Amino acid sequence: MEIKLERVLPTEIEKRSMEIIESELPHPIDPALAPIIKRCVHTAADFDYVDNLCFSDGVLEKALAAIQKGAFIITDTTMAKSGINKTELAKYGGEAHCFIADEDVRACAKANGSTRAVAAMEKAAALDKPLIFAIGNAPTALVKLYEMIEEGRLKPELIIGVPVGFVNVVQSKELIMTADVPYIVARGRKGGSNIAAAICNALMYILRDQNK
Amino acid sequence: MEIKLERVLPTEIEKRSMEIIESELPHPIDPALAPIIKRCVHTAADFDYVDNLCFSDGVLEKALAAIQKGAFIITDTTMAKSGINKTELAKYGGEAHCFIADEDVRACAKANGSTRAVAAMEKAAALDKPLIFAIGNAPTALVKLYEMIEEGRLKPELIIGVPVGFVNVVQSKELIMTADVPYIVARGRKGGSNIAAAICNALMYILRDQNK
Repeated sequence: MEIKLERVLPTEIEKRSMEIIESELPHPIDPALAPIIKRCVHTAADFDYVDNLCFSDGVLEKALAAIQKGAFIITDTTMAKSGINKTELAKYGGEAHCFIADEDVRACAKANGSTRAVAAMEKAAALDKPLIFAIGNAPTALVKLYEMIEEGRLKPELIIGVPVGFVNVVQSKELIMTADVPYIVARGRKGGSNIAAAICNALMYILRDQNK
Repeated sequence: MEIKLERVLPTEIEKRSMEIIESELPHPIDPALAPIIKRCVHTAADFDYVDNLCFSDGVLEKALAAIQKGAFIITDTTMAKSGINKTELAKYGGEAHCFIADEDVRACAKANGSTRAVAAMEKAAALDKPLIFAIGNAPTALVKLYEMIEEGRLKPELIIGVPVGFVNVVQSKELIMTADVPYIVARGRKGGSNIAAAICNALMYILRDQNK
């Protein structure tokens, strides 16, 4: 078998990828949300994201406004934080944070018999900043966010709810979609730290393209 | 609709997830390779990894031996590096490295009109260590590794070839499988930094479980 590499300039690879994704979409998608949907498809090479992504009413405008006012992005994994374009985020004064490995978070989780993800959400909620939560791993984090919102202790600008997995993942996403909060959720089992970061980046690239 | 959370102790979530995966496997899988395959399914909630993962002859023994002798793991993204269990790796003297953001790598890529991933592979190849490459993003990195192996300039212990995407991804994986090198490859478009890290971790957890 002959293996033939496509000749594409390094700077053109993403553009070409997006064209391929566009050409293979199973059905038309909302043009305003397309950059988010297509970036998720791109990140996992998985067209399931065309149909599993759920957006609350008016979430795009709210999300972009939050980034523009310097919202901090809180992740539940260092991997998601690592995937977020911090240079782009810093343009608006924003920062990405993950508290999962912090010593006080460990201690708190141990004391409460809870997960470190839950303790990390508690710590984040105490920040005096507009907050975007990007949850790609821990359903327990998403459930904790739901509880804090319901208790009136937390009012995030946006929740990106894309934990991946088999235990309480589906339920945690359904739960957060019942809360009074702007959300972007990947319904079902799929998601991940890479998808969480991809959605954050897609939002920032929408802003960047608007300002071109 | 009532949303019912499953009661599972935080420490039991992964075990329960693996049981669910086991129960939903589309067909029996090689028990020796099962921990790797199941961890990939777990990472993406995607059973495609049951059939797209390809293993070179005897790769498991070679991969475990490499880790045991303190091989360094080289990734093509900071995200993959971030997902690798460095504490576990350090038990054997190993380290995880990603050179993609290094100043000399940037400069070299620019000078050569190449990708930073290619320049990062060049830099890694110069290390005087047993090397495992875990490529979850850049097909150009995988092609570069192929070329260096063919030229006799590089003899890695293992290549984890799981870039994700739409341009030259499929081809780069087919190419590396023709090289004389132990490999674990996710055939097709799927993969990612998360999958690259998951495979590294799966290998380390196999060793950990053997030593229990």
